[in-house]
Parts: sequence; structure tokens; C-alpha cells
Amino acid sequence: MKLEKLVGERFKEKPADCIIDSHALMVRGGYMKYVANGIFSSYTPLKRITRKIEQILREEMDAIDGQEVQFPVVMPASLWQESGRYDSIGKEMARFNDRNGSPLVLGMTHEEAAVQLVREYGQSYMKYPFMIYQIQTKFRDEARPRAGLIRVREFTMKDAYSFHTSQEDLEEYYRKCHKAYERIYERVGLPEVISVASDSGMMGGSISHEFMLLTPIGEDSIAICKECDYRANMEAAECITDNRRDDISEPLTMVHTPDIHTIEEVCEFLGCDERTSCKAVVYQRNADDHYIVLFIRGDLEVNETKLTNYLGYDIHPAVITEECDLNAGYIGPVDLKGDFTVLYDSSLKGLNNLSCGANVTEYHYTGLDMERDVEGAEYHDFAKIQEGGICPACGKHSISVSRGIEVGNIFQLGTKYTKAMNMTYIDNEGNLKYPIMGCYGIGVGRLAAAICEAHHDQYGPVWPISVAPWQIHLCAVRSDDENVRAYADKLYEELQNMGVEVIYDDRKVSAGVMFSDADLLGVPYRVIVSPRNMKQGVVEVVSRDKSFSEMLSLDTAKEEIIKILNNSKM
Amino acid sequence: MKLEKLVGERFKEKPADCIIDSHALMVRGGYMKYVANGIFSSYTPLKRITRKIEQILREEMDAIDGQEVQFPVVMPASLWQESGRYDSIGKEMARFNDRNGSPLVLGMTHEEAAVQLVREYGQSYMKYPFMIYQIQTKFRDEARPRAGLIRVREFTMKDAYSFHTSQEDLEEYYRKCHKAYERIYERVGLPEVISVASDSGMMGGSISHEFMLLTPIGEDSIAICKECDYRANMEAAECITDNRRDDISEPLTMVHTPDIHTIEEVCEFLGCDERTSCKAVVYQRNADDHYIVLFIRGDLEVNETKLTNYLGYDIHPAVITEECDLNAGYIGPVDLKGDFTVLYDSSLKGLNNLSCGANVTEYHYTGLDMERDVEGAEYHDFAKIQEGGICPACGKHSISVSRGIEVGNIFQLGTKYTKAMNMTYIDNEGNLKYPIMGCYGIGVGRLAAAICEAHHDQYGPVWPISVAPWQIHLCAVRSDDENVRAYADKLYEELQNMGVEVIYDDRKVSAGVMFSDADLLGVPYRVIVSPRNMKQGVVEVVSRDKSFSEMLSLDTAKEEIIKILNNSKM
Repeated sequence: MKLEKLVGERFKEKPADCIIDSHALMVRGGYMKYVANGIFSSYTPLKRITRKIEQILREEMDAIDGQEVQFPVVMPASLWQESGRYDSIGKEMARFNDRNGSPLVLGMTHEEAAVQLVREYGQSYMKYPFMIYQIQTKFRDEARPRAGLIRVREFTMKDAYSFHTSQEDLEEYYRKCHKAYERIYERVGLPEVISVASDSGMMGGSISHEFMLLTPIGEDSIAICKECDYRANMEAAECITDNRRDDISEPLTMVHTPDIHTIEEVCEFLGCDERTSCKAVVYQRNADDHYIVLFIRGDLEVNETKLTNYLGYDIHPAVITEECDLNAGYIGPVDLKGDFTVLYDSSLKGLNNLSCGANVTEYHYTGLDMERDVEGAEYHDFAKIQEGGICPACGKHSISVSRGIEVGNIFQLGTKYTKAMNMTYIDNEGNLKYPIMGCYGIGVGRLAAAICEAHHDQYGPVWPISVAPWQIHLCAVRSDDENVRAYADKLYEELQNMGVEVIYDDRKVSAGVMFSDADLLGVPYRVIVSPRNMKQGVVEVVSRDKSFSEMLSLDTAKEEIIKILNNSKM
Repeated sequence: MKLEKLVGERFKEKPADCIIDSHALMVRGGYMKYVANGIFSSYTPLKRITRKIEQILREEMDAIDGQEVQFPVVMPASLWQESGRYDSIGKEMARFNDRNGSPLVLGMTHEEAAVQLVREYGQSYMKYPFMIYQIQTKFRDEARPRAGLIRVREFTMKDAYSFHTSQEDLEEYYRKCHKAYERIYERVGLPEVISVASDSGMMGGSISHEFMLLTPIGEDSIAICKECDYRANMEAAECITDNRRDDISEPLTMVHTPDIHTIEEVCEFLGCDERTSCKAVVYQRNADDHYIVLFIRGDLEVNETKLTNYLGYDIHPAVITEECDLNAGYIGPVDLKGDFTVLYDSSLKGLNNLSCGANVTEYHYTGLDMERDVEGAEYHDFAKIQEGGICPACGKHSISVSRGIEVGNIFQLGTKYTKAMNMTYIDNEGNLKYPIMGCYGIGVGRLAAAICEAHHDQYGPVWPISVAPWQIHLCAVRSDDENVRAYADKLYEELQNMGVEVIYDDRKVSAGVMFSDADLLGVPYRVIVSPRNMKQGVVEVVSRDKSFSEMLSLDTAKEEIIKILNNSKM
């Protein structure tokens, strides 16, 4: 198509509200337009990119025997009541009543709809395994939409659901899908995406992986071992500590610590290391403000995801009131009295000679021995893994923490949904069983933004040819020149007839304006027809990433261009 | 793909809740599944059909210089407040608040979003004309969803919006789009679709057309002239009457008409024809129950769409109370006193010697002369056109009324939205102006259902090859026969490699089960490999519509099949 007719505006100035490059470039390049917080319209260039991504997703899902279906965006609340998620999911799910007062929800994920669709179909073990997927709009009322297409409220997602009669079969399919995802990232130009073990969150199930594009602007933190292939989302990474007990346990001794509250102050005052202190971190249950007191080694931080998963309910940092029997700043595990849930992080297990609060205002203990002084304590992993921490796989102090954008996830769901929604099948021995599910998601818009993050320069995106809105950006510099006009018009026509996607700039603007617009559209190859080139009997082909530049003879240019395109296609 | 693996169930029994064939066949054939009233999931066969329809829509929109974009499903209420439709549209628009209490709506049409997307872009006359379109899910909270995919609450629609600087330019583009629509219906196998003039309803604007598939199960009534090319939706069709005045006006005479209320009773009692009576039809304004009394010729019915359009507000049939000063059954235009809006249909203009109510209980008049007795009456067209009525175009008594399914519509919107939302451009003389809009919609699911309505037999749909879920339905009858299995497996492989879409039934079921499943899937060509055929050295190709049947030699079958497919493609 002609650039002159392309709806959307391109401009130089970085919009003030864009904190990441992909967002700024997509606004500046006329790819997207803000409609409401976390809600955008797409102009044609972005629509063409997302359609290409969707086609790649479709091909790879079909290649692993996926069947494309479509679930509704709007679903009856009853479907979500069946699974229990109508209550367990909070404000991120949009809810409304229809004209007859029936409660409806907007789909933010479609496990319930998937089970509803195949519940009658899958009554015999003979039907298994099967996988269904859709590419559909979803709405999730995020508290903090941010960073353009990275975290939005309305988004298009490829979501797939597989059904199995054994855990082994699920695992085999899960590996197949993992490989399909690797092919997808490869094909869209992001071979560097890695998979990391993740927390399953509200999806339920046990094993799950996220696919991450490592980038400083990512919102996720990922623990990566430099020595082995261990990689996990911080939320899921086990924190291993090297719990060394001193040979001799000092006696438990109360120390007067006036005006001393924080762990740093305590350690400074007592002349000890944070690693030899026992810190209290206090939360409250959202439902009724019940207190949860968690003891953890002084230098570590609490991983609230792990804590929430362990507790099975939502929590928030505590507000410690005078009535609550907790001495803020002086809380310790010895003689702690009151109606609290008390938890111990594994980092404290077996340690002695620790400092801690004495549950008396202005007093701390030294010489705390977890074995001697804290009877019956159970220890669990609630701590955040740290830079330089111990790798749970190889045991070396080799953990580094990076940031990443999640560009896909896969979950082994187990029977959570099939049980709750009473989907059963009869196995080959006549027994009634629940199918085992897996689910597999990729957000289309976020993937487009991630590609842009990974492939851009200061002037614009550098789209991989597999997802580029067009393949060739044809510039007729000085289109008022008769020869330029005639040749460029013909080339435009011919390339299109050969099936090449061409955006044609024949505007009467300067080469500078032309090229900066071309930079913003990020089309992989630019073909420049100009009076100077014409005189020399050539057209110029330059790749958007500057790695390639060639002069082609006017006579054979179109065939050469086809060759260049064919060679650059994977 | 293999039929054995196709998710979804096929069965014989017609579901009790299906009132039309397309719905029953799509449920019986495993195309769709009920999720909630007017909300469905699609299985793979329907998804494949709708994707093909969508691709045809895309190609035809691109061919008239459309640019594919995407608007959000969820929009801020503020966008609809700008246009005024947040208030003017009733319960059919789903509304909810987000987690911060901001009001949101679900898009049921996207004029507002279209204007919002291009408002800044279209500031100079140089940018015009342009057209943007999307294919997207919409939600309309219909009071009475019915007939499967014909009238649903959630649906996928191709909606296009064009912007122009003159009415002439809009009209030219409108004609272009009309032609594109004709090509679309031709390509999806519905060349018989006709366009009819329609009422613009809530869209605003003046000229509009609906595209109708004529069928007795349609929900729309269409007036078609048998003598000329006049075609209009009943809601929009002008009712022309032949108002003949008698030479001599009888005097207005009050007649005692005890226990006589309806127009039929009055005419029988007075020995006159309904055509010589003046009937009162009473409505009330929804907002405040204000009465509207409409006088119309006794044999005609009121077209409430015309009445509502004239009044500019919503109405309902009146409840006539004792306090309202109306004598139910005896209402007439002479000496009618009270705070009513009184209207006269054109069918009464100039008539004399009519009967009518006398506004006195148990009394009617004869000898009513509209010119003499009803001073200052203004006449407008409020009547329904009738079978055998007068054609507004050619003037002959040649109107016939048919039923139809609306499978598309196009509207000339004028400046309704651009004015309301303050979208302006500067024309070539420096004046600030509002662009003129057109909009153009086709519902994808309804079109699929309409195709099924037009192309089916009692055993299943007969899909046109352009939209069929697969092109070839390969049946290996007696797949336990080694020769059958080997040949069919190979043919399946080879046809797929040649780019043919094949559904392959190699189940160990009877030919009867196989063929009735094939009938339900409605694939245009069935290829039958069977022991008997193998012995004769042939495979059988039969078209789903029974118009074609041929035996192909085993050696050349695949090439012959390709030829058959190529010949059947348009």
C-alpha cells in the first residue's frame, strides 16, 4: 500500500508517558493509540504484525495436533462458580449483570470454558489425548497497567488446553508444547527467550514454566544459575541456605535495647551480623486481619508468593496496633503469646547464637538457639533467592538475578478444573476418572512489544521479516522526477504481483522525512529509487538493521529483491 | 486431520430447542456449543468456516482500499458519552465499572472508537478519503437471542468506517462498498442475497441498505416490487395509498353503537368497509406515559419504526385508564379533547364519508370528512406497506412482502459522529469542516448460519467450497482391509502435501455411520476408498450435493481430485 494513505501519525518526540522503548516507538510510529488505561486500538502496521504472529502461533499449535476453537469473551458467572474461581479471583475479573440480572464475567483465561466445551465429548479414554486452542481477546482488570503493550487490561491471547488420561501423557505433551514454544520464539525472531520454572499462581497445578525475554525493563525477576541450567522465576525459586551451627550455644540473654527497632539498628547495637539475627516479618490475612508472624534470617527477604501459596489465602503487610499483643520492633520467637499464626523460614533451621526480639518493649535477646529455645518449630521455604545465592540444582553459590518479560507460559494443571467441574471419562477398565489438563498461553500484543524491545535502535523498530508489517519499504526519492516515478511505480506493481508485501512511499517529501518514517515502520528492506541512483542505472537496497546494502541493476532489481527476501526467510 | 481426533460430537436427533435448520444442523454436527443465552463456543469445523469467511471479508475490504485496524472490545464510557449514545442506547449495551469505579462498556458497534482512532490523523483534507475496518468480537445484550447464530449476544463482526470530505465522495465509496458486498456474497456462495433500502435506526444517518437472504425463517420483512427494482425493509418502506374522495360528502352523523369497540365490529355494524373508516391507535411515551393518538385508515397497520423515528423518542402501546380522557373504543378525530399528541397518517388525507369514534361512549360518527371536519391536520407516513400495496417507485399495485435474514448493512452516517466528537479537518480553502462518514458491517457467524440455511438438506449442511471447513472428506470404508488402509493413508498424505484440506475418516465404523457423519460435516467432495472400489481399481468421488459422482482410477486419483477442486473453485 501507499504510505501516503496509511492511517496513523508518525512523529519524532518521545511521548512523556512512555517509560520503555517499545511503547514509545509504537506510539511514535503510528502502531497503537491509547483509548483508556491499559486499553489500546491498533493501527494497520501493528495489526499486520499481530496477524503474522497469530499465524505462526496457529501453525505451531496445529503442528502439535492442536484444534482451533473459539470460546466466548463473555461468560456466565455460573461457569466460574463451578470451578470456584468466581470467588477466589478478585478484582482483576470484570463482572456485570445482563439485562435480566444474570451475572456475567469477561474471560481473563478459559480453563472453565475449555472444560465446558469438551465435557460431553471426552467421556471415553479412547478420545484422549486432545488439545484445543483459540486466539481471542481477553480482559483482565490489572491494578497497574504499564509499559504500553507489556501490561495491559485488554489483550489478545493464544490459549491452549490439553486433556490427558495419565500424568506421563501430560508430561510428554508438555514437553512437545515446550518445543513448539521454542520454535515460535525462534520464528518470531526471539531465539534468546529462555524457559524458567515458575509459580502456578491462580491457575492451580504444580509444574509450570514461563518463557522469558531477558531485558532490564522486564517486570519479572529470574534466578539463573551460572554453573548449571537451573532457571526459575524469583517467585518460584527455592532459597537454599547454608545453615551453620556454632559449636557452642551461648545462653539466651536479655539485653536492654532502648530506641532500637529495625534489624539494622539491632545488629549495629549488638555488634552482630544480620546473618546471625532472627527477624520477624508480620502480615495480616485479608479476610479478617488475623496476624501471621514469620521469622526469617535477618539478611533475607520474604517471598510473598511462596508465603501466600503456603497459607492458601491472601495477605497484606501488617498494621501493628496497640491491642494486638505484638511489640513492634521487639518481636521474637521466645515466649511469643497471642492468637497468631507463627511460621519459621528454613534459613533459621538449626541455627544458634542469634539475636532476636524479646517480646518486651526495649529488650532483645542474644544467644537464641532455635533447637533449644523454639520448641516444635516447623521450617518452610519462604525466602527470596538472592544474587550470589545457592543454586537449588547444583548447590554452588552461582545464582544471578536478571529481569525479564514473560512472553509465554505453560502449566501442568492436573485435575483441578476437571474435578471441580465434574468432567469424567471411563478408562479402559471401566473406572470413572478425571482427565488431567495442561494449559499453554502466549499473549500476542506483549510478544509484539517484546520483539520490538529486542529489535530496535533509537530511530525505530527493526522488525524480523517473519513478523514485519511489510517486507519491502519502497522509497521514491524525488517522485516528481519522471524517471523515478515511472520506475518506482512499475517496481511497486511488479513486486506486489510477485506476492511481495510492499509499502510504497511516493510522497513529495524530503529523503530525510522519508527515511525517518521508514525507520519508524521498521520494514526489513528498504529499496531506494532516486534520480542519482537512476542515473547510475541502479536502485539501492538497504536492510533496516544496516547489516546489508547493495546496488541492484535497474533491469534485474525485482528478481534480485525476491532473492534477497528468499534468503532472509527462515 | 483425522476425523477420529476431531473434538465435538455428532448425533442424529434434532435438539428440541432448535427452531431453524442451520441451528439444529450446527449443533448436531459438532460446530457449536451453547454456553449461555445467545453465547456460544465454536468447535473446529465452525472456526475453520468463519476464518475462511473472515479472509474473504479481509480481501474484499483491502480491495476497496480498506486498512485493517483493531478497536478494543472494552471501551471507556466517556467515548460513548461524547457521541451521546451512552444515554440514547438502552439495555442492549453492557456496562460495568472497573476496579477503580470507572464506567466501561462493551462495544456493540465502533463508530466512536473509529473517530477516536483517526481524529488527530484526519486534520487535513489531503488525508481523505480513507477507510478502516476490523474483524472483532462484539457484545449486544439482545432481549431475545434466538435461532442459533442468527441472533446472538456475542458475535464477531467485520465493521468498516469510511471518512470523506463530500457527500458525493461518500456516495461514490458507498457504491464501491455495495459492489464489494455483492462480491462477498457471491464468493461465500450466496449470490442470491439482495440489497434493500433500510431504516438507519440507532446508527443515525439517512441512506442505508441491508443485504438480505430471502428465506421464510428470516426475522425481517421486506417489501419487493414485482414490476420494478424497488426493494425495502418493511420498517423503511413508504406506504402509498390511493386516496379517493367521494364526490358528495355526507353530513357528520352520530350513531349509537352499543357494545361495539373494535374496528371490525364498527364496520360490520355500520355496514361499511374498513377502508372507509378512520381508526385510532394509541401509544404512550416511555419516559412519562404521555399519550400519542394516531389516526390511520381502518385497514392499515402502524409501522412503529416510522412513528418512533418521527417522534424522536421511544413509545409503547397505550394502557388507556379512566382518568386519561380517552374513550377506549370510541376515539375519533372530531372534538378530541385532552393533553395528547395527535397524528394523522397519510392514508386519511382528503378522504370523506368515513366512520370514526365520536369520543362519547357507545357512539360513532359516520360521514367524517377529513377536510371539512378535521381542521389543520398534518399527514405523515406511519403505515406499514402491505402485500399487493402500491410500489413507491413505479406506482403499480405490485408489492409483495417476503421474509429475510439480514446478512450485512451499509450506512451513510453523515456527520453525526464527527460533529458530536468534534473531529474536524481543514479544507482546501482553510475552512474547518466535519468529515462525512459511512459504515459497513457484516456479522461473521450470522453469515455462516445463513449460508447453512441456504445450502443444506435434511442430512446436513452442504458448504460451498469457498467456506467449507475442509475440501475433501476422505472415507476409508473398512479401514481394517490392508489395501484400503494403505491406499487411503497414502492418498491422505499426498493430498495434504499438495495443499488440499482433507478430513480423513479411517475409523472402524460402518459405511452408514461414516457417511452420515460426512453429511453433517458438509464437505463439498467425498472420496471413498473401499474394498469393492479397490477391487475395481477405482476410488469414488461424490459431491455433497449429489450433483457430481465419478470413479477415478487409483493411479491418477490424486491428480483428478486436484482438477475437480480447481474446476469447482471460482
